[in-house]
Amino acid sequence: MNQPRSTPRVVAVRTPSKHYDILIGQGLLGDPAAWQGLPRCTHAVLVSNPTVFALHGERALHSLRAVAPRTSHVLLPDGEAFKDWQTLNTVFDHLLREGCDRKAMLFALGGGVVGDMTGFAAACYMRGVPFVQLPTTLLAQVDSSVGGKTAINHPMGKNMIGAFQQPERVLCDLDTLATLPPRELRAGLAEVIKYAPIADVPLLGWLEQHLGALLAGDVEALAEAVQRSCEIKAAVVGGDERESGRRAILNFGHTFGHAIEAGLGYGEWLHGEAVGCGMVIAASLSAELGLVPAAWAERVERLVDRAGLPVRAPDLCEDRWFELMAVDKKAEAGDIRYVLLDAPGSATLRTVPRATVAAVLRRHTVAPRAGATQPA
Amino acid sequence: MNQPRSTPRVVAVRTPSKHYDILIGQGLLGDPAAWQGLPRCTHAVLVSNPTVFALHGERALHSLRAVAPRTSHVLLPDGEAFKDWQTLNTVFDHLLREGCDRKAMLFALGGGVVGDMTGFAAACYMRGVPFVQLPTTLLAQVDSSVGGKTAINHPMGKNMIGAFQQPERVLCDLDTLATLPPRELRAGLAEVIKYAPIADVPLLGWLEQHLGALLAGDVEALAEAVQRSCEIKAAVVGGDERESGRRAILNFGHTFGHAIEAGLGYGEWLHGEAVGCGMVIAASLSAELGLVPAAWAERVERLVDRAGLPVRAPDLCEDRWFELMAVDKKAEAGDIRYVLLDAPGSATLRTVPRATVAAVLRRHTVAPRAGATQPA
Repeated sequence: MNQPRSTPRVVAVRTPSKHYDILIGQGLLGDPAAWQGLPRCTHAVLVSNPTVFALHGERALHSLRAVAPRTSHVLLPDGEAFKDWQTLNTVFDHLLREGCDRKAMLFALGGGVVGDMTGFAAACYMRGVPFVQLPTTLLAQVDSSVGGKTAINHPMGKNMIGAFQQPERVLCDLDTLATLPPRELRAGLAEVIKYAPIADVPLLGWLEQHLGALLAGDVEALAEAVQRSCEIKAAVVGGDERESGRRAILNFGHTFGHAIEAGLGYGEWLHGEAVGCGMVIAASLSAELGLVPAAWAERVERLVDRAGLPVRAPDLCEDRWFELMAVDKKAEAGDIRYVLLDAPGSATLRTVPRATVAAVLRRHTVAPRAGATQPA
Repeated sequence: MNQPRSTPRVVAVRTPSKHYDILIGQGLLGDPAAWQGLPRCTHAVLVSNPTVFALHGERALHSLRAVAPRTSHVLLPDGEAFKDWQTLNTVFDHLLREGCDRKAMLFALGGGVVGDMTGFAAACYMRGVPFVQLPTTLLAQVDSSVGGKTAINHPMGKNMIGAFQQPERVLCDLDTLATLPPRELRAGLAEVIKYAPIADVPLLGWLEQHLGALLAGDVEALAEAVQRSCEIKAAVVGGDERESGRRAILNFGHTFGHAIEAGLGYGEWLHGEAVGCGMVIAASLSAELGLVPAAWAERVERLVDRAGLPVRAPDLCEDRWFELMAVDKKAEAGDIRYVLLDAPGSATLRTVPRATVAAVLRRHTVAPRAGATQPA
């Protein structure tokens, strides 16, 4: 079994409904110390997908055996396209077949899709069982596994059906990032970059300096990026667990990003790619409205571009953009509320005249060419 | 519009996650005062079934129009057999088609099935929107609409997928009970009777005295029965919202009852009928174990019988009984924990040797005859 190479970094999350820790380090999946002190459970169920399970499943199952007298695992098909009720139901089928009761605990080993579905399954199974996040992608480690948002998609919108359900713990094993395809590492960087313009000016400088190391998979740089991201997210989530106010700033770039994902069909662009492009549009819109200097928006765009993420959106046609954005959860009474930058390192929610948004969208859209929407 | 005939009775529910009131009285569906003070919402969505909507829908919609600038309604097929994901999804389809965001509020007009599904839809839609219970059956008024348990069924078990989600308010309009089929009124009485042996000895005497009035639909008697039931339930739920301990006593009769419902196929017996019979078995098992005098168990059985509810179970065969009871949510690590009476007016959770349970089950099972399982 892998031995931890150093003491893990710890980020404490304190929400009204639960206090829990995020552990960040190498070798955590195989480190007994990282698994101690979880609530007592009679059956530990690992939820994963075939790709991730082949890489890390055995190590996680070995650790699970110290947590519960019974263990089992269930594998979900890989990809956002399967983040639906049918796939979720295969988790429920497994739990019922295994005779799991409320003393069962779920463990999500994978990226955002596995984490979102496992968390929602845990929220609903017998009206709630505990779960642990074992994120294996950069995107999941810096964003989706933290904060308790869980959901599945509906044909009419992403993440429309879900729950706020906090995990018991999050183990970010940095070793898992070494097996990540480069495209997914870049997509994860989009969510790291996100924290800088909305909450942390020095982080933008740090990212500009360390982007090369991050793209090369340098473990120390990744540890720092994951920790800074989790600290910012924990601070925001701790003050607004159920997204009644400030938490919505974490969706910077997401209103445009979700529209791109839904407009092209989920899975065409990775979530992080769509968010990367969405941040460029949102930053540009903020500058257009005079909220931040154009130079700040350009700095965001340059960083997104250097991370190998798309900075130009596919051509969805104007009506379709607004239709897709109107079903976003941040929309209120039909008005679309955009997360905008109101100063470097600060964000706010605002409605914006449609014509202004449309003009910015046009500037950031590639000319329609067949097959040109897929990022490299 | 109906005018209220007297000041409604009020039962306050105080749980860690929410404080809300249950209003009990005549004419509440059409009484503007009963609808005041709800959270601001932009779209009020009435969820009901065709039968109930034909009787009470217009009155409820009229009141809704004072609550929100936009209103709409969605009707679900009637019956426990439809308490599944597919039907739940028709609510999500409606909400998304109407462009509802988190400022929408749902209103459940109907019995336990409508209430459970509307509550679960409210818990999951965009990770949670508020909802109000407008129970139109006795069972829903005294039990299912109070306490925040919401769920749908899974082919392998009843109420397996759900959430604890408290309503904003419960309006028990006693007028709706006048249109209730007699069989459903009797089924509701099972849940009223339930509160006496587990928590309230004087209530048993009161019920023995007033059963005739209740069966005849006497409004004063019904008001008293609904209030006493809600007070007991509110007290128990307030101390254990998420059923980690004492709340489980409210499932008196339900372990056996759920097995009857699942064994025969949902809808064959009404839930209250199965619970009535389940209470007789559970009381008899308590006496068998020497926890209460046999006379107390017989008093429970006599009252269930006088209420026109079945006191003999269908013949499910022993293995099937235990298989069905083992998936119950109160089972822990494979052991079935029964809600038993440990004194008149008091209940507890215990495991019991299978042979003892089997013997009591045999005593309370009708001889197998074709077509003999359906209550009159």
